[in-house]
Amino acid sequence: MIKAGIIGATGYAGSELVSLLLKHPDVEIVFLGSSSQQGVVFSDIYPRYRGLCDLVLDESDIVKAAEICDVVFLALPHGLASSFVTSEILKKVKVIDLGADFRLKDVSVYESWYKVSHNGRAVMDQAVYGLCEIHRSEIGKTNLVANPGCYTTCSILSLYPLLKEHLVDPSSLIVDALSGVSGAGRSAKVANLFCEVNESVKAYGVASHRHTPEIEQELSLAAGMDVVLTFTPHLVPMNRGILATCYAKLLDGVDEKTVNDAYAKYYGKEPFIRLCPSLSETRDVEGTNFVDISLRIDTRTGRVIVVTAIDNLVKGAAGQAVQNMNIMFGLDEKEGLI
Amino acid sequence: MIKAGIIGATGYAGSELVSLLLKHPDVEIVFLGSSSQQGVVFSDIYPRYRGLCDLVLDESDIVKAAEICDVVFLALPHGLASSFVTSEILKKVKVIDLGADFRLKDVSVYESWYKVSHNGRAVMDQAVYGLCEIHRSEIGKTNLVANPGCYTTCSILSLYPLLKEHLVDPSSLIVDALSGVSGAGRSAKVANLFCEVNESVKAYGVASHRHTPEIEQELSLAAGMDVVLTFTPHLVPMNRGILATCYAKLLDGVDEKTVNDAYAKYYGKEPFIRLCPSLSETRDVEGTNFVDISLRIDTRTGRVIVVTAIDNLVKGAAGQAVQNMNIMFGLDEKEGLI
Amino acid sequence: MIKAGIIGATGYAGSELVSLLLKHPDVEIVFLGSSSQQGVVFSDIYPRYRGLCDLVLDESDIVKAAEICDVVFLALPHGLASSFVTSEILKKVKVIDLGADFRLKDVSVYESWYKVSHNGRAVMDQAVYGLCEIHRSEIGKTNLVANPGCYTTCSILSLYPLLKEHLVDPSSLIVDALSGVSGAGRSAKVANLFCEVNESVKAYGVASHRHTPEIEQELSLAAGMDVVLTFTPHLVPMNRGILATCYAKLLDGVDEKTVNDAYAKYYGKEPFIRLCPSLSETRDVEGTNFVDISLRIDTRTGRVIVVTAIDNLVKGAAGQAVQNMNIMFGLDEKEGLI
Amino acid sequence: MIKAGIIGATGYAGSELVSLLLKHPDVEIVFLGSSSQQGVVFSDIYPRYRGLCDLVLDESDIVKAAEICDVVFLALPHGLASSFVTSEILKKVKVIDLGADFRLKDVSVYESWYKVSHNGRAVMDQAVYGLCEIHRSEIGKTNLVANPGCYTTCSILSLYPLLKEHLVDPSSLIVDALSGVSGAGRSAKVANLFCEVNESVKAYGVASHRHTPEIEQELSLAAGMDVVLTFTPHLVPMNRGILATCYAKLLDGVDEKTVNDAYAKYYGKEPFIRLCPSLSETRDVEGTNFVDISLRIDTRTGRVIVVTAIDNLVKGAAGQAVQNMNIMFGLDEKEGLI
Repeated sequence: MIKAGIIGATGYAGSELVSLLLKHPDVEIVFLGSSSQQGVVFSDIYPRYRGLCDLVLDESDIVKAAEICDVVFLALPHGLASSFVTSEILKKVKVIDLGADFRLKDVSVYESWYKVSHNGRAVMDQAVYGLCEIHRSEIGKTNLVANPGCYTTCSILSLYPLLKEHLVDPSSLIVDALSGVSGAGRSAKVANLFCEVNESVKAYGVASHRHTPEIEQELSLAAGMDVVLTFTPHLVPMNRGILATCYAKLLDGVDEKTVNDAYAKYYGKEPFIRLCPSLSETRDVEGTNFVDISLRIDTRTGRVIVVTAIDNLVKGAAGQAVQNMNIMFGLDEKEGLI
Repeated sequence: MIKAGIIGATGYAGSELVSLLLKHPDVEIVFLGSSSQQGVVFSDIYPRYRGLCDLVLDESDIVKAAEICDVVFLALPHGLASSFVTSEILKKVKVIDLGADFRLKDVSVYESWYKVSHNGRAVMDQAVYGLCEIHRSEIGKTNLVANPGCYTTCSILSLYPLLKEHLVDPSSLIVDALSGVSGAGRSAKVANLFCEVNESVKAYGVASHRHTPEIEQELSLAAGMDVVLTFTPHLVPMNRGILATCYAKLLDGVDEKTVNDAYAKYYGKEPFIRLCPSLSETRDVEGTNFVDISLRIDTRTGRVIVVTAIDNLVKGAAGQAVQNMNIMFGLDEKEGLI
Repeated sequence: MIKAGIIGATGYAGSELVSLLLKHPDVEIVFLGSSSQQGVVFSDIYPRYRGLCDLVLDESDIVKAAEICDVVFLALPHGLASSFVTSEILKKVKVIDLGADFRLKDVSVYESWYKVSHNGRAVMDQAVYGLCEIHRSEIGKTNLVANPGCYTTCSILSLYPLLKEHLVDPSSLIVDALSGVSGAGRSAKVANLFCEVNESVKAYGVASHRHTPEIEQELSLAAGMDVVLTFTPHLVPMNRGILATCYAKLLDGVDEKTVNDAYAKYYGKEPFIRLCPSLSETRDVEGTNFVDISLRIDTRTGRVIVVTAIDNLVKGAAGQAVQNMNIMFGLDEKEGLI
Repeated sequence: MIKAGIIGATGYAGSELVSLLLKHPDVEIVFLGSSSQQGVVFSDIYPRYRGLCDLVLDESDIVKAAEICDVVFLALPHGLASSFVTSEILKKVKVIDLGADFRLKDVSVYESWYKVSHNGRAVMDQAVYGLCEIHRSEIGKTNLVANPGCYTTCSILSLYPLLKEHLVDPSSLIVDALSGVSGAGRSAKVANLFCEVNESVKAYGVASHRHTPEIEQELSLAAGMDVVLTFTPHLVPMNRGILATCYAKLLDGVDEKTVNDAYAKYYGKEPFIRLCPSLSETRDVEGTNFVDISLRIDTRTGRVIVVTAIDNLVKGAAGQAVQNMNIMFGLDEKEGLI
């Protein structure tokens, strides 16, 4: 059995990890850490887990966790993980970080978007961007995986084949995304109160959301050139789910068949990507690790429109983290996830 | 024009008052006070009011408000109003308190349920319980109205005719009530976050909710004897509305006609009470000052079941406050409300 | 592998059964029947199951299903199952009926509440009421289980220990229950449209809901005397979940400890019942087969208040059906459910 | 008093019209028509109006309505209004059609998108597109107003100043819009059931939605050239509201000030358009006739992003219809709306 620890276990992503790991046949949870609720029984915070996971929350200490775990998941506010993870830690334990600290290859880009200094330069070269479908082989060889953000997973996978195969104008990309409220986390803010969110929708972080550089980094890699795009997130009144509607201008001569073939080429055998004839809806992926991708060509304007749905807490966080763990430990990638 | 002020204007009840008073043909809002957001423009907190009410929030000071207002509404956490309202204030201005401080005639009952000391004993004899349909004539003669709670308005009006007419066993009363989340207020608490409330229902304050003594006070008055009952509030995932399902054992010989006649006797001419043949639903009173009452007899068990709907922020708070204001100023009771 | 069939697979309960059986290690789904959508691929109706269950829907024919199945689940409108299930069928296959047809021992009571004639009298003596925690041993010996209703599972389990141990006045029982909208089924009715249900609550079937005689049958058995009670269902704007708030008058001398001991006696070792110190919430049982029971004593009125949460589609339908299947086949009762 | 009739009164737009006209100081509702519910009391369908509007529904007959009304509102499925409205009718009564039949100047475009033949060619030259802020003067001179669609009102007003002032590349326009479920109407369809819509989002009508040619017609007029754009509607789980996020490529040299000045020029004095410094949210316009427009420049990509919120049933339907009525009758445009 793989011994697993979670630091930052009381947030929504941490709690979802508990749920998935409890069902995983090869994993035992041995450590739950929390800086704010140390000493509290986990199932007193989440009564849903009563009788299923009644561990007492330990402190938020990766050194302690590394002593008894084979893998440690970090679900922390940005800026903390880069201080916690050292070369010594990585010699003892595999680390999967659900936060942003190790996602951006260029630390100065990180510092510019996140407005904090990065303290993990020494281990950056070990960090692999954990978008399993794209970086699978490197994930299998490292001890430090930077689990992608929720919006980014959905956005990158939506557009990757188009850029990799040079089917669209890279300067024409727009990602318009909708997220359930769990994406905003579990901290007590007026803006996230039920009555502030319910029966309303809004855009936020327009032209400035921190997931933008992460999407651009990966799509630039795919395109072999610098890609800059517009990303607009919206908050919608539901607990879970992300729907990304992505727009790109097709290059001359690219037709529907070419587009479909490209997606089939890259995703046809992926266990967690479903190419859907009907338009994707978030309810169809709720609680699953699936990425439902649907494609439409707007012949009037020469655009391709990609509509993709994921569960932000599963493929967008905890599920992809488990998928990464499976790859890192050489397990069947679907283990515990289907 | 009546010059009105609101202290505690940034909560949900205060904001609803702004909305109602803006539409009232005889009222002008001249003072908005807030202890936490003094100096902020009201419509920056509630952009809904942009262009409609752009007053700058003043401090939470009743003395200052009394200088320029004809009526001051208080929408404050319990314990504050009883310190603010003095005989001097009441000589200058009419006060309508939306909080609990002046509702319970017996100050010791207040102190026992609310766990704070009461500082307004000197004006308690001027306080009238502002349930308009029951205390209309006294409301017209005082300068201090204690606006009833949301659950209590709904519960008392549901059962009042049954007790006043001695149709039921006073020891058999149960009120099982459902509330939208705005009833919990606008403070930043994890328990009221969207993801904590959405897609779930719960009971709370079982056998201990503070609205209980208020319901009992008024029903005891109606019955001419001490009434003790069970009151169970529940939180449901919607913004507004209270539905109270009330149970009482009919006395021998009381039939459906007797029951219906009693409600017609007390409520038949009330402008804001509708006796409904179909079962009441909260959506039908949303945004209105109506009280929708429906009655069913369970002949198998000898019980009457009263199902009543109000909007917790209107008839359960701001609307009833305006209704009280109308009575206090000798206006048509419906002014600004229909 | 147990070969399983579902007739009425396209309703919400049928779809939930598909979900649970797909995860069950000892079951293979071999037959899905539907009267309205024969010939359609199941995952075209529920894209959530794309790649997981792509069976073509067969006709709604139990004879055909019995040829290839070891167990057939029926999820049909009332009146149909009593025509389908014959002695010959029961010699070939185990049947678990999620509808009402075989739940009421007294067929005349069934016909009086459901307003249809009962065509299954010949097999009624084989029917066992499938409330696992109460009738486990009989379930293990029959081929025909009548899976209880959602409200009834929640209500009976809430009150059973009180009546079995004679701790309360049987004439004082009131069950006030809240249900998510999936309980209303998947047929196209204006009353169940999003905009009709959202942001509102209502009571329905007051003093007349068909689950009442089912609750009374089982509680009468427990009490050893005829029990008549008041049951009031409400519709709340959420997909899933039932919360039952149950009231009973304690007999003289019954205190909190006696009550708690009674629940511990009957439920202490039940794998799917959790006795909760904090008040039950439906979100904590969502997607699970758990029954979360919490107890409060209202010493002021001498009542016990039992607040119980289940997922209406799991313990209230498909989950309990799987639990029954596990018992009927001699499997671990928790198999595929935890 | 203006005597008003509504044909198609039982849909969501019709019901909203009733609500608005009841509050309008210069209007009396004298006729409500319905093809499906003739003879039923309106408030039995919408108990919300009990005591406020208890008219019996008449047949769906514009000739009959024209006899007693000064203005008739049509809220009908497309294809009906074009048969109902004749030159004779327009001599007797002003008509405001909330449907699509008279919106598109080119009848062949209508027939191609709506797949029905158009029977109102004879009156097409009298029809004025009732987007008040743009066609105010023509509205004042006609007896037939084609009230714009909900998505179109929001989309056109979002982009109009940019095209009118030639600030953006007309080939770069994308409108990505979110709508509450009332936009889908009140007919009984499985797709609009609560459990099908709640906790999910989806795109629909991608590259094919019928509001597209309406948006293109008006923006082409503004630009003085043919405009073709991509319009993507989404369904979100809330009752009301539309949020349009609109993208356009700025022409060289156009900066933020130029953009802001353009919006101020066209909308600065509009009573129902608010130019908002913070990003627009649908809750802030709920139940109002306001159009909240917010602007952001994405300097990295050279795009302007316009985020606009309306209430689909008010400014997107009934409210704009009342605004049109006010203009047609020479009343203050804000009458009954603020």
